[in-house]
Order: sequence, then C-alpha cells, then structure tokens
Amino acid sequence: MTESPVPALPTCRFQSFSEPSDPAQVAPRVAALRKALAAQGLDGFIVPRADEHQGEYVPAHMARLAWLTGFTGSAGNAVILPDKAVLIVDGRYTIQSAEQTDTAVVTPVKMEESPLDKWIEANLPEGARLGYDPWLHTVDGVARLEKAVASAGGTLVTVAPNPIDALWSDRPAPPTAAVKAHRADHAGEDTASKLARIQEALVKAKVDALVISDPHALAWTFNIRGGDVEHTPLPLGYGIVPREGRPTVFLAPEKVTNEAGDAIGAVGEIAPPAALEKQLAALGAAKARVRLDASTAASALATLIRDAGGTPDAGADPIALMKARKNETELKGARDAHIRDGAAVARYLSWLAREAPKGKLTEIDAVAALENERLKTGLLKDVSFTTIAGAGPNAALPHYRVSEASNRRLEPGIFLVDSGAQYEDGTTDITRTIAIGEPTPEMRDRYTRVLKGHLAISRVVFVKGTSGAQLDALARLPLWQAGLDFDHGTGHGVGSYLSVHEGPQRLSKLGTTPLEPGMILSNEPGYYKEGEYGIRIENLIVVEKRVIPGGDRTIYGFETITWAPYERALIDLSLLDDGEIAWINAYHAQVWSNLAPLVEGEVKTWLERACLPL
Amino acid sequence: MTESPVPALPTCRFQSFSEPSDPAQVAPRVAALRKALAAQGLDGFIVPRADEHQGEYVPAHMARLAWLTGFTGSAGNAVILPDKAVLIVDGRYTIQSAEQTDTAVVTPVKMEESPLDKWIEANLPEGARLGYDPWLHTVDGVARLEKAVASAGGTLVTVAPNPIDALWSDRPAPPTAAVKAHRADHAGEDTASKLARIQEALVKAKVDALVISDPHALAWTFNIRGGDVEHTPLPLGYGIVPREGRPTVFLAPEKVTNEAGDAIGAVGEIAPPAALEKQLAALGAAKARVRLDASTAASALATLIRDAGGTPDAGADPIALMKARKNETELKGARDAHIRDGAAVARYLSWLAREAPKGKLTEIDAVAALENERLKTGLLKDVSFTTIAGAGPNAALPHYRVSEASNRRLEPGIFLVDSGAQYEDGTTDITRTIAIGEPTPEMRDRYTRVLKGHLAISRVVFVKGTSGAQLDALARLPLWQAGLDFDHGTGHGVGSYLSVHEGPQRLSKLGTTPLEPGMILSNEPGYYKEGEYGIRIENLIVVEKRVIPGGDRTIYGFETITWAPYERALIDLSLLDDGEIAWINAYHAQVWSNLAPLVEGEVKTWLERACLPL
Repeated sequence: MTESPVPALPTCRFQSFSEPSDPAQVAPRVAALRKALAAQGLDGFIVPRADEHQGEYVPAHMARLAWLTGFTGSAGNAVILPDKAVLIVDGRYTIQSAEQTDTAVVTPVKMEESPLDKWIEANLPEGARLGYDPWLHTVDGVARLEKAVASAGGTLVTVAPNPIDALWSDRPAPPTAAVKAHRADHAGEDTASKLARIQEALVKAKVDALVISDPHALAWTFNIRGGDVEHTPLPLGYGIVPREGRPTVFLAPEKVTNEAGDAIGAVGEIAPPAALEKQLAALGAAKARVRLDASTAASALATLIRDAGGTPDAGADPIALMKARKNETELKGARDAHIRDGAAVARYLSWLAREAPKGKLTEIDAVAALENERLKTGLLKDVSFTTIAGAGPNAALPHYRVSEASNRRLEPGIFLVDSGAQYEDGTTDITRTIAIGEPTPEMRDRYTRVLKGHLAISRVVFVKGTSGAQLDALARLPLWQAGLDFDHGTGHGVGSYLSVHEGPQRLSKLGTTPLEPGMILSNEPGYYKEGEYGIRIENLIVVEKRVIPGGDRTIYGFETITWAPYERALIDLSLLDDGEIAWINAYHAQVWSNLAPLVEGEVKTWLERACLPL
Repeated sequence: MTESPVPALPTCRFQSFSEPSDPAQVAPRVAALRKALAAQGLDGFIVPRADEHQGEYVPAHMARLAWLTGFTGSAGNAVILPDKAVLIVDGRYTIQSAEQTDTAVVTPVKMEESPLDKWIEANLPEGARLGYDPWLHTVDGVARLEKAVASAGGTLVTVAPNPIDALWSDRPAPPTAAVKAHRADHAGEDTASKLARIQEALVKAKVDALVISDPHALAWTFNIRGGDVEHTPLPLGYGIVPREGRPTVFLAPEKVTNEAGDAIGAVGEIAPPAALEKQLAALGAAKARVRLDASTAASALATLIRDAGGTPDAGADPIALMKARKNETELKGARDAHIRDGAAVARYLSWLAREAPKGKLTEIDAVAALENERLKTGLLKDVSFTTIAGAGPNAALPHYRVSEASNRRLEPGIFLVDSGAQYEDGTTDITRTIAIGEPTPEMRDRYTRVLKGHLAISRVVFVKGTSGAQLDALARLPLWQAGLDFDHGTGHGVGSYLSVHEGPQRLSKLGTTPLEPGMILSNEPGYYKEGEYGIRIENLIVVEKRVIPGGDRTIYGFETITWAPYERALIDLSLLDDGEIAWINAYHAQVWSNLAPLVEGEVKTWLERACLPL
C-alpha cells in the first residue's frame, strides 16, 4: 500500500494516517457490476474482503471490496443484488463503513445482527442465482453459503473469473516483493528437516499430499520471507508437499532471489503460480487424497482436485502446530528482539513522560515517535501492525487506528499504546497504558484489576494438555469481581518474523488447542469505558516446561519476554497481594538489568525510577 | 435389577454388592450369535452397552452386552467378527471386564488405546459386512461407524430386529414401573406452560415437530416420573411435540397411573410405544422437518422419518436447557432436600467418627449405614447413584463401586464417601473425605489443595455467557502449583428429582454451555494417589445472579446448597488465605444453623464441634 503524502504530520516509514476512499465511485462501480452480472445471468454476487489465502492483510490487487464499496477495513462482506446492496461489517467498523461507502447505494449492516449467511437467508429472492468467486471462500465457507442460499430457495453459482476484475480498469499489478532466504541462525531448523516432519504427519493422516495455501506456512516450511502485504514478511504463493519425494513451491520465479531459489532448489522445485492447477489436476488423476488447510484453502482448490478424480480432505494443516512451537534458535531470537525492542520502548516512554504533560502531543505524534525509536535500532524491518495509540475516548476502542480525522491531543488522564515490530530475529507486540497528569481513583482501580489479570496469566502454572480456553478466565476474574469485563480474547499466538497474529494457540474461550512449550502468545487483558478511556497491558509470553518437586504431572508455565515498566502512577497497591507485588518487583528488576545497558542519560534516569520496587 | 441375597452383609434397599456374571456362558452365546450372523450373511455385529435412549442406566431387557459378554459395567462396546471378538472398555473397567468375560473368547481392549471406530478401521477385513442395530446408535454415531467401516473397505449394514433377542431365551420383560404425576408443588410449572415454551422454540428453529427421545426430557415436559431404571425415576418412552397442536406421549398405557394419565390427557394424547413408528411415518409423509435430539435419538428414528419423505434434523433438544434452569419451586425443593439430606449425612458422619477408629467397619458397612440414615428421613425414594465408598487405595479409583470381592476394612488414613439421594423435591450428591486416625502431612497438603480448588469455584463470580469450560481450571490451580491434577471434570449438572448427571451444563473443559441462573451443578475436585488414597470434596451449587455496585455487566455466582462440615483434621491452615478461612467459617456456621434443629444428642455435639470456626 502506498503512503499518502501528509507534509504537516510527522513522518512514518511504515504507517499512514489516511483512509483514501472516494464514495463518489461507488454508484458507477456497483451499477457496472450489476450490468456484468445480468449479462452472465446472475442475480447477485458476494464480495468478501478476503484474498485467495484468507490473509489478515490483502495485497492491493485483491482489494476488490475496497474498490467496489470504498470500505478499507480488515473484515467485511458485500452482497450485491439487483435492488439491494449491503456491506456487512462487525462492530469495529460501523462508523468507518458508513463514512467510506456511498450509503445511498450500499447499506452498511451490522454483522452481529445479521451475519452473511443469515442476511442471504432472509434477503435472497426465491429462485435467485447468487454468484461467488471460489478462490475467495473456504470449503467450509461455501458449505455455509450453500445452506443459506438453499434455505432462501436460490442457487449458489460458481463464477470465474471474478467479474470485478474486468471492470477494474486501474487495477494494481500483483505484488512483486523479493522472496529472500530466512537465515539459518534465525530459523533454527532447515527445510529438509521440516519437510521430513511434514511428510511423517501426512503418512499419519493417511493423505497422499498437502496443499500449502497459507503463505505463513509456506514461509516457515521453506525458510523464506517476502514482502507482498503490509506488516508481515509474507511471500504470497502456494506449495504442494507429496507424502514422499520433492515438494513444489508456486511463486513467480522472477520474485525469488538467488539465495532463496538455491535453498528451495536443494529440496524441491519452484514453479510459476500458473502451474498450480495442472499439478492439482495431476494429483486428482492419480486418485490422490489431498489435505487442504480447512482455515485457508480456497474452495476452488478442492474443486480442481475433485474434478480431476482425487479426494480433497479439508482438515488441520500439520504445519500450523509445528510453526507455533518455536525452536531454541527462534526463542533466542525472540528474546534478543524483545530486549532491543524494549530499549526502544523505554526511550519512547521516557520521551512521552517528558512531553505528554506539556499538552501539545497528538496521537499521530506519538505513533511517529515510537516508530522512529524502533528505526534507531537499525534492524527494524516493519512495524508488526498499525500502532494503536488512543487518547481519551479513542482508547476505549480496542482496535482503534488513528487517522488524520480522528487524531486527538493527549490530555490529562490515560493514554494507551499498543504496537509491535518486525525484526529478522523476532516479532514483538507490547501494550502500555500511561498516566498523564493525575489519574482518577477509578482509573487506578481499573488499571490495577487489569494488571492483576495480566499477572495471573504471567504467574500461572498448568498441566500439559491445558488450552488457552481454560486459562482465559484468570485474566478476567479481578474485573468480574467488580462487575466488569472486556470483549476480546486475552491473547493470541505470535509468529517468528511472521504474523503478529498466529494460530492455532490463543488465550480465549475459543482457544481449544493445548498449549505446548515454545508457543509464543500475547497476554493482554484490558478494560474499556465507552466514551471515556481504555486500558490494556500486554507482554508476550512463551510456554515453558516447569519442574515441580513432589509433583507427578508434566507442568508448564509462561516465560515473559517483553521488557518495559508498568505504570506506577496507575497501580493501587491496596488491591495487590504480596505475591503480585513480589512478581512486579522481580520483573521491574529484570527490565532494568536487561535495558539499562542499552539506554543512557535521561532515559536511563527515567528507567531506573520506573523500575524501583513498589 | 434384582438384589442378590447376601445374608452376612448389612442390608441396603437400593444397592447391591455383587456383580453377577457367568463367564462360562460367554462361549456358547458368542458362538450362537456368530451362527445367527452367518445365516443373515453378516461378517460381524456391534453390541454397544446402550439402550435405545442412550441412557446412563439400561433396563434389564436391554442389557445385551452383559448377556453376551458377562460385562456389567456402565459403558463399553463389543464387536463380534468370525475369528475375533473384542470388548472395548475405558480405563475404569480394565480389571472388571477381564474378570467378568471369558477372555479365551472375548478379548478386552482399552478404549483409550483403540476406540470403537479406530478398532474397526484397523481390524475389519476388506469386503466384510458389519451389522449394527439402528436403535442403539445415534445419527452421529452411525456416521462415525460408516466412516470407519468405509475406511476398512467394508460395508455397514442395518440389522433389525437385533439378532441377540432371538437367542436370549430367558430375556427379562420390559420394565413396567408405574408412571406417576410429579406434583405441582415440586415441578413449579405446568405442562401447558412447558409445551408453549417448547413450541415457541420449534418455531424459532424452523422445524415442524420434535421427537423427545430422552426420557429425562419426557419426564420434565409432562411432569411425570417413573421407575424403569435404577436410581433415576425415569419412565422409558418417547414423545412427539408438533409445532402447533397437541403432543403425543408413547408409553405403555398400562403403566400410566390415573393421575398421570389425566394430567397428560389434559394437554395431549397417550399412545402405545408401537404407535411411534406410524406417527413418524405420518410426519414424513407430510414432508415435515423433525428435530431429533443429537445426543439421544436413535439413528432408526431418522431413517423412519427420511424413508417416509420427511427431513430429520439432528440438533439440540430445546428441552435440555429449559430443564437445566430450575424454577423457584424446584430450587426451593432442592434447598429443602439438601437440608434434610445434610442432617442424614451429619448423623452418618458422626457415627463414622465414633465407629471408624475402632477398626471394624468395612466399606459395605459404611454404604449400608449411610443409606439407612437417609431412609430414616422417611422421604427417600432411592439413592441417586451407587455409593462410592473407598478405603485406602480403593479411594484412588474415582468411580469405585464396592463389591463383596473388593470390600476393604476402613483403616487409619483417609476414607472417601460420594453418595446421593432421590427425594421427590430434589436430587442430592455429596462427597466428603474423612480422616481416620492421624492423616499424614501429605494427605493434609493434598486435601487442602483440593479444598482450595473447591472454594475457588464456590466463591467465583463471572460474567453472563461464561461456560463451565472457562471455570474448571480454577478448581485445579492449587493442585497444578504442586505438580498435581485430577482426571475428571470438576462438576456435572444435576436434575430435579431426575438424573444426578444432567446436561448440558458442566464444569469441565468440555462444558461449553453458558451457565445460567437456576442451573444446579456439582463442585467436586479431587486428588487420587494410585495404590494409596483418594480425596474428593463435593457440594452442589446453583447459578444465581449477583448485583455488584459500580459494575456494568450481568454477573453470576454460585449459591452452595449442600450442608455438611469439611474435615478439620485434613485442613492445613497455613495453605489457606484469610478469604478462604472466612468462607469456610461462614459455611460451617450455616451448616450448624441449618442442621442443628434436625439432630440431637451425640450427633448434635459432634456437629457443633465440627462447625466451630477454624
């Protein structure tokens, strides 16, 4: 995504503060699409925000939803019928969707009230033929659509190519970022070893081959990194791993650097993306049973295999769990990256402590300053996501992203910053909530309850087999006791110089994957008071084995790897017990010992004070 | 089930201590079954422990697995092939299955190592025709069997009638226990009102009718109770509730008392069980969409509907959640029943405290004494399950059931009693672990950790929407911290003069149903040291709404309704915090105030001492 020039605002290399969108384009584009649909005998078409890999970020040439409706948020679906057009988005995007689209043409609908399948069930006319692009929906997703369309008495119709593409005159080209080798001293396991483990899993799952449709899995398996989307070093492409023999990586050959090409070539083949369909057909012709990743594989992949005579088997991608369990090299990289990042955050927090009370800073100033502190490390590859910097009521929106329009001045009270970095040795993600001036007793009470929940996760030990769904409540208990809660998960998995949001591990009531040593997660409870303020405290943690004398079970705990002081001015000591205070003091002592060698002058003075025992 | 006469042992009205089984019968019966299968062109047959309602207890005439293999445990599957016969049971039954069957003919297999579907996949010969009785497997169960049989290259074949029935010469008749009305002052809601709620749910689910296949649901809906199985007042039968109009109850008319018959007749029809198939066929012929309870409805029901032209819709039985949320009348009944039961338990515990140290009591003595204390209430209808009374290493088996062969003397250390009663106003379930003589420091440490987990559940407050899966870990944390755990859920739902094991609510990592006010659950963490001792502490608790000043969420907590002192001699005070001690003291004060009016003499003296502040 290109940055819009904003001369008056501080400079960021990796983030922009505008949401370019032109509602005036919506009417002609929707009209053109309707005409194209009618010409194909279709009564409607579904336009999801997804690309063909179901990625969190989509490349510009896949941003069909934004092209059609103007809406640039990270999730949503449009349905275009002859006399109705809707844009179904979740609660985060209620305001943004209405601002970005032309509401005279496209009606925003709240997903919580009417998710895609329910909306279709209720609104598709009987007998209608509703089209969808099979590259943009998973096998399960199509099954849900089939059911909804059938219930409405209509017919779901596969449409290829996507009818938007012929109308999109200035469509960007597919990204061409270089695909580079991920160094052995960062990856810690070579591709041959990873392939051996994957092939063993395929034998166990009784399948003949695996289609790698998740670019994160492709990057991990072949120790490559790319740059095809924002904030995550992904090469967009596919792979096929047969149960025996050499795999194929489908990537535009002109993108692959020599070093990466040599590494892949040592264990497998590189083929152009156009060769994928032929190889799937060959697998089908051989009557192969082919595992597809249920969460990212496009329905079109299953169809190609089935039509050629094979058996698509949508299930768990065995790579996901392997990737989630970081090896010792990746963990060392993560620890190094977090100390480096912690020093940048400390410089930033010390600057904020000095500047914020003067009343001149805005959220954008704060975002820019933080990115620039990270740039000073000399190793920053990107931010790991768009910084969430919320002043006052903006902080009450957990997924807030500052724009020129929403930009607020930092005023006395609370300021929340959730940010992260991509370094080649590790991905970081940290949230600190800062007091500006004198916080209210209520703010201190709420901050301390959030902190107690965060500490409960930091300190818990649990038996092997325990999932995040079983631990999530620990982060909420201190809020529940005050009649409060927060409406997001406690933590998500984090990749190793990959996505800052990685599955399958998570701390959430939906996180049923058992936690295993080496998994990195975030620990980020919060509290949000609508229209007033928001609080969140986040460290990254690593699952590690613990030895407990006298015990007879395998026990795990969390190693905290994020280093930055908590906000003393927001802690109400009367709410903490001795064990909690001791843990904070030990953590702060470690923050000081890790970061002090990397900072100096007034930053060091600030850090020393911030790390004193409570 | 008839009791075996055991003159030398104490008398129980509702429990026996022998497991009658004759391994010598196994060989001729298996041979006869193989012959019958061959005559039908079948290569094998699956014999589950289930009856046609998937009940926890099966009536004698449905005990086909016991007839064939001798095994009388509560769960298991046999598969009979021409040259192989296996009995697949879970870890609880490893020893019992080997003792009860003829292992020269039937090989016991551990379910944990080879569940039914995996065993079939690995052992069914290619091309084999494997039979099953469609009344003994659910729709989902048959789907799993289909997959396993297909994967082995065989064919799954529906067999009706069950070929065992023709071989079973002395087969008992179906049970004929009277079906009585459940009084309004116990039920709290009349059938008309319940039917209105059910029919509203059917409209919402867009189905034309509901088949009630779970006898608990039948009993709840029509305010009737029966006696067709052990320990649960169930009338075995079916119901059909149309979306509009009058329902039909399928019960042998000769079983239905006038009072119950009049009550049912006021809102619907009573038809003989044989009429069920005709009514299902009529629904099918009317192209009806018919909801079947996915967890209890036999596959045969779906087939009857489908073959007649209807659409079976296996899903959630809407009655389950209605039944789980007890109304105020049921809750008052439960509270009354628990105070009455608590007095019986107090009399028993005081007797045990006096007699156990003398070294003469056995587990069977202890079971009999407890049942007799409950009989003295004059209101005992049955025990709610076979009492678990474990001395020494027997207590380390969470599901232990004493038999004449296993009966142990109570020796110094720990004694565990888990028991419950059926009263017309409520079902109880309580576990206490008692010290005999001087417990070891380890026993006190473990007991106190179990108690801390139990208290954490008793005291927790949580936001609306929280499920048992999210709370279960709270009961384990104090054990995890010592490297320990227990291998069962923390709690199960409990019925209202119905099953002591009731879904869908549960405190377990599998319990994803949100907890709602009025649900009754058990709270029973434990610790089991194999070959040495076992600990469990159990109260029943009711979900209730809490008002928290300053909060903005709907918050629930638990009301404890079980009344009996914890074991002071096993509490290590140094492991408890002030809040925990205060809770126990308040609980003990309430135990005293609830039970003191109901006991006298040395029981009262014992109770007073047992309830003193810690």
